[in-house]
Formats: sequence, C-alpha cells, structure tokens
Amino acid sequence: MTDLDLSELDDRTRELDAAHVFHSWSAQAGLNPLVIAGGAGSRVWDHAGRSWLDFSSQLVNTNIGHQHPAVIAAIHEQADLLTTVAPATANLARGEAAKRITDRAPAGFNKVFFTNGGADANENAIRMARLFTGRDKILSTYRSYHGNTGAAVVATGDWRRIPNEYARGHVHFFGPWLYRSEFWATTPEQESERALRHLERVIQSEGPSSIAAILIETIPGTAGVLIPPPGYLAGVREIADRYGILIITDEVMCGFGRAGRWFAFEGYDLVPDLITFAKGVNSGYVPAGGVIISDAIAATWDTAVFPGGLTYSGHPLAMAAIVGALDAMSSEGIVENAARVGREAIGPGLEELFAKHDIIGEVRGEGVFWALELVADRETREPVSAAVIGRIKGALVERGLLPFVAENRIHVVPPCTVTDDEVAEALATYDEVLSLPLVE
Amino acid sequence: MTDLDLSELDDRTRELDAAHVFHSWSAQAGLNPLVIAGGAGSRVWDHAGRSWLDFSSQLVNTNIGHQHPAVIAAIHEQADLLTTVAPATANLARGEAAKRITDRAPAGFNKVFFTNGGADANENAIRMARLFTGRDKILSTYRSYHGNTGAAVVATGDWRRIPNEYARGHVHFFGPWLYRSEFWATTPEQESERALRHLERVIQSEGPSSIAAILIETIPGTAGVLIPPPGYLAGVREIADRYGILIITDEVMCGFGRAGRWFAFEGYDLVPDLITFAKGVNSGYVPAGGVIISDAIAATWDTAVFPGGLTYSGHPLAMAAIVGALDAMSSEGIVENAARVGREAIGPGLEELFAKHDIIGEVRGEGVFWALELVADRETREPVSAAVIGRIKGALVERGLLPFVAENRIHVVPPCTVTDDEVAEALATYDEVLSLPLVE
Repeated sequence: MTDLDLSELDDRTRELDAAHVFHSWSAQAGLNPLVIAGGAGSRVWDHAGRSWLDFSSQLVNTNIGHQHPAVIAAIHEQADLLTTVAPATANLARGEAAKRITDRAPAGFNKVFFTNGGADANENAIRMARLFTGRDKILSTYRSYHGNTGAAVVATGDWRRIPNEYARGHVHFFGPWLYRSEFWATTPEQESERALRHLERVIQSEGPSSIAAILIETIPGTAGVLIPPPGYLAGVREIADRYGILIITDEVMCGFGRAGRWFAFEGYDLVPDLITFAKGVNSGYVPAGGVIISDAIAATWDTAVFPGGLTYSGHPLAMAAIVGALDAMSSEGIVENAARVGREAIGPGLEELFAKHDIIGEVRGEGVFWALELVADRETREPVSAAVIGRIKGALVERGLLPFVAENRIHVVPPCTVTDDEVAEALATYDEVLSLPLVE
Repeated sequence: MTDLDLSELDDRTRELDAAHVFHSWSAQAGLNPLVIAGGAGSRVWDHAGRSWLDFSSQLVNTNIGHQHPAVIAAIHEQADLLTTVAPATANLARGEAAKRITDRAPAGFNKVFFTNGGADANENAIRMARLFTGRDKILSTYRSYHGNTGAAVVATGDWRRIPNEYARGHVHFFGPWLYRSEFWATTPEQESERALRHLERVIQSEGPSSIAAILIETIPGTAGVLIPPPGYLAGVREIADRYGILIITDEVMCGFGRAGRWFAFEGYDLVPDLITFAKGVNSGYVPAGGVIISDAIAATWDTAVFPGGLTYSGHPLAMAAIVGALDAMSSEGIVENAARVGREAIGPGLEELFAKHDIIGEVRGEGVFWALELVADRETREPVSAAVIGRIKGALVERGLLPFVAENRIHVVPPCTVTDDEVAEALATYDEVLSLPLVE
C-alpha cells in the first residue's frame, strides 16, 4: 500500500487515523489508539513488531482467534469466485452457511435472515416480533447492549440509548444480578424469584397485549457478563408464554462458543422464538449477522412480503467465512476448548486472583466469557474510579496484554482457541498489575 | 465446498436456499431465485455455465464490475495480514480508505465514520444532525429509500417504511418529478420552483426550529432515478440555510461513479453538511458504508463522546476493498467511462428505444444511472401492470440479461466499467423484448 518502512507505517497509521477516521463511542480529540497491523491466534501486533496477547478478542468477536488459516482460506477461495451478489439471488455459500447455522440451532429453527451485524439482526428480530404478534412494545433490560441503530440502540439499556431515544415502543426493566441486586435479595434463588416477579409486574403494568417481545442477551455481555441465576430464564419463558409474548435471545456476544456452547441459552433451559447473532459466527472476519427464525414465525412471511432487507444480506464473502469458521470450530473442538479452558484454567485462576486481591469484588463467567468486578471497598462494593481503571488498562497494555475494559470491570474474553499457557501468561499479568499501587 | 459436479451445485444451491435462507423484502414461498455462482466485469453466471449480462449491478452496487482483479488482489493481501480489528484501534487500511474518500469529497470534509452499509450510515448521519442541531425532526421525501433499520427505514419514503413506523421525528414531503408532478407544473423550472415552495411550506408548518436535517438522495434511486430539475438542489440549500437546517445527501446509490461523477451532488450546485455512502465505495465486495462529516459537525465530538458505534466500523478487509476499488477507479478512468458511456451510448440508445416503443413513457438518467418509465398509455401515463413488468423481466432473463426492475420501471444500471459493445447488446435485448406482445 505504501513504500514506507515498518516503524514509519505505524506513524503513518496514526497520522491518517487522527486526520480522517471518526471513532465509535468516543470523543475524538486526543485519542491515541493502539496501532494493530496483524495477528494470529491470541496475539496481535503493530507494524514495528510490538505484540500483545489479545484477551479482548477485539470487541469480543474473534472467537476463533486471529487469522485462523481455515477461515482465511475460505475467504481467499470465495474472493476468487464471487465476493458479492444481490440478496434476491441464490448463492451456494449463503445456503451452506444457513444450513450450518440451523444445524446448530434447536429443532424447529430452519431459516436464517442474514444481516451485516448484530444491530440490524436485532432490528429485524424486533420487526418480526412486532409483525408476528401485531403488538408494539419491546421489553429489554437496563443492563444490556443491542446495537447502535434506531430500534436496536433504543432497546439497549445502558447509557448509550439515552442520546438516541427517537423511537417509541421500548420499555426497560431490571434483570437479575445478585451482586448489585435491584430487589434486596440475598441468595441467587431469591434474586431469580424477585427478578421474575418484577418482570411480570412490568408486563402487567404496561399491558401484556401491547408487548410483542422480550429481548434479552442470554448472558448480558458488555453490561458485565451477568450469568443468569438458577431458574431465571426458564421463568422468563413461562411468563412470556402466559402472556403470548415472544422471546428474542440476543446471542451476538454470548453465542458461537463464547460461553463454551454453540448458543449460551442451551445452558439455561430456555428455547427462544428468535435468535440474533453476529460476531462469533465468523469471528467478524467479514461483517455478518442475522436472525435464526422459528418455523412458526417464519411461516408468517410465506405469502406475505417481509418488510425488511438489505443489499448485503447473505453476502457470499461473509458467508464463506461463516462456513470456514463453523467447520473449523467443529472439527477442531474449539467450542469444547472454550468450555474446558473456562472450567479448568480461567475460572480457577481468577478465583486465585480474587483470594489475593481485595480490589476484586466478584468473579463471574463461564467458557471464555468472564468478568472481574473491581471495587474500591469489598464491603460497600463501591466501583473503582475511572482513573483507577485507566491506570490498570494502561499497565496491562504496557505489559503486552490487550484487555477488554468496561466501566469498573475487566472482562476476560480471549478467543475460544486460547491455550492454557496463554491463560497462565494473562493471569500472571493481571496479578502483577493488580499488585501495583493503583490508588494515589 | 462439496464434491458435487457443476449442474448438481445449482440444484444444491436452490435446495439449501429454499430450506434455510430467508430473503429480503419478499414473500418466502415459491421464490425461484436465479443461482449466481460467479462473475467478471459486466457478466455473472451459474455453476452450469449459463451467463447473464448484468445491467442491474446486483442492487446497483457493483460499480467497478464483478471481481475486478485489483479489488480482489487488495482483499487477498489484507486477508493475509488482518481481517478484523476493533474500531478503537488504529489500522492502516482504515486510514488509507478514509483518506481516499475525503480526498474526493469537497473542501472542509476531513473525517469519515465507517459503518457496515447504507442504512447505518444514514442512522449515524441522522444522529449527528440531531445532536449537532439539538433538534428532533428529519425531513425526507416520499420517493426515497434510505435503508431498513429503525431510523433509516422510517426516513425512507416508499411503502417499505409503513410497516416499520416505530420511530418518531420523521416528516415526509414531496420532491420534484415533472413527469408525475405533485405540483401541477408543466415545465422543469416550474416543477423546481413549486417543489421548493412546497418544501418551505412543510418546514414552516412543522416549525423550523424543530427540524434537524433534510435527508435527500441527490438523485432518488430505487424511487425511479429522479434527476433533480434545474435549481432545485441549490434552492434546497438556500432554504436549509435560511432556517439553520442541515442537509444530509444520501449518496449510497448515486455516489462513487454511478452518476458519472465521484459524488452526484457535484453536478447540482449543492454542498451538503453530511454525506452518506456505501455500495459503490468498494462495489460491495466487502460490506461497508459510512458518513463523511463536515469539519464543523465533526468538531462537536472533539471533546464530547459521540454516542454511536459498531463492532465492524472501519473493518480492515472492507477498507482494503475501498482502497483497491478507489485506486483502480481513478487509475483506469472508470468514473469518466461511466459519464462517457451514459452520454454517448446509453442515453442516445434509450432515446432510440423511446422513439420506437410507445410503452416507454419517459427516459431519464445520466452516467450509468437510467430509468425507463413503462406506461400502458403515453397520454394518461398510467403505469404498466405488475403482470406486464413480470413478463418483461422474465423475457430479459431468458435472453441473458439481468435487469433491475422497480414498480413499473426498468432501471438501466450497469457497472461503471460497462463497454459500448455491452451497451449495444443490452439495447438490442431491451428492443427485442419490448417488441414482444406483452399485454394479453
């Protein structure tokens, strides 16, 4: 692309970035982003060769690791055939990708509507739920993130929805999280029971016949890897059924191996009506997302026109990357690896850190989907300040670890392909950094 | 991907498609989509080797033609380096793509926010306009298409918005189109003047201080390639300025060569405040879109956090395809070719068809962006029926031409790389089909 030598390429990258690139969810002045030029497996590097162990999976999307050879080969092969084709055509890569996704879905889910990512997957699932039920409102939790477009960002519960509330028909409720309970609960069972009662009261107060769907991340991700307590998701299903309300599970972040299973909901006695996905389905090597549609809902548009669509729906290059990624994940036991590493290495390792560092208020997670809740005080559970988190992040990056940081938390979210040695390396780095004098 | 022979691959494609793929903007039963397995330049083919001259550019996106070797090479090269990276990082391909886009934009446009496609480009432009102005409403025309997500689909004017109107703050008005004037006009000048008065009356009636932006396709595309009459867009700019309203030009379909210029608005004495793009920027080889932001608006988020973003913003593989496409379009004079072919071959050829076939009510367009308005009666201008259009489409496909059909129109929208010979071949096919007995 240029004739500059390697360290000059890092400078040029920073210059072009500062001059011309407008960044997501950021103030633009004084950004000093890390240059990332390449990667392989759990590592990324800049042009000059400085490298980092990637325990962020970027935005929790490179489930298969960076530059997995099978996925890269699939992209090369499809690039030589046909990169793009209109959604109204039929294309083999698209059919093969859809089959591989529905093969992994529960019985009775046979159709996939492909989108460009998670936001428009949620948009279309919301559209389907509204049209199928003839109802308007969508319920979602305050602790959630569902994407940045019209309906998706308003479904989002966190602060990111507030400057964007230009859509009607969204109602938020509190999901369960015992560590910071909204329900004055003291046990997981009580948290679950009270969260369900709260949900049912919101439904009754909003008017059940106005509610199309409950949209939930099976395991709320950016909100903190909030593992649902026993019985909660089964209870949501029961309440939804009682009122004729659909359930959309957002598996964009938690699906396709992240939780140590193909779909996170498989661990929670819940079969949803619509499933949204993106990220892990092809690790984001080519932008793609979609909705897996239950047969009953899909049938709604057998003869009626579905009023949604997009130019790159079922994009062949993105589809080839799905086929490559899912085949490799199966043949190489990558989802099983995520489950095992979570159980044997990450979980026990983080518990050791918890035992050693008072700044860790709680450890939670499964598979390669974990969070360290950092607190100023274990008793009051007061979150650490932004300054402390900033120092921790800086110290980790300096020591060659790329962390995922959200509010007062470190999310421990390596690729599903992560090895025990890499986990040990990361744990040692977390340990070292959490041992520094962090509060001045 | 499979061991089947070539014609069996077409069957397998159709089977998988019917079983598992949910299609955009369609009733799903009885779809019989064309199998497309490969392509080059202006042609596409199925596995068995049956081929079509692509005068649709798929969804008017393959501006550089199918499988342009320079873009495919750029994809291969980047695939071997790094396919995906988080938006918070800096990446050389992203910076190079942003620079190439802003280099082609008017003075004072230096930043690009990348998205996955046109819909979320419009979503983010709308968000920027609302936050910049502190106003709520977005004006757009009934004859428009702006995408399928929350805010974008509601900004859309055509029927596709109606089942999706779950967002507030959108107001629609009529744009100019002399052939089917909403203003009882009889000359282009009168149409322009009256359309401007109508727009100003809508603004006054809605309350100017409530309006953030006017969102317009510079040349409404799917709505019919509606070339703006003289003075209209300059007049919109004047009105917008008078009331402190921003202009967002949606260049998703009309930009990057389609109209024979880098941006369609360059032909119309209009400088917008925000420019949205997708499709032609990299011909859709890898999904990408974005917003080109004027300096005054970009500065709003120098120190304040921009409340929008997405995982695949500035996706390296998509960015490499942009770099490859824009460099090739410049060095090979592809935009100039689009202008010349439109002026010398498509325009005169369609005028000849108009002289010969009464079914053509109007011919309009420029560059490689044209429409044939088909009518049952030239006097009343009554559109031909869906049955007639269906027969025309079928007859064209049978004769090896892939058309773009919308309502009662054929859009003549080949790649910008189309040759005079290919235009002659297509014109002969249109001529033959329009000579058939079509109304039974």
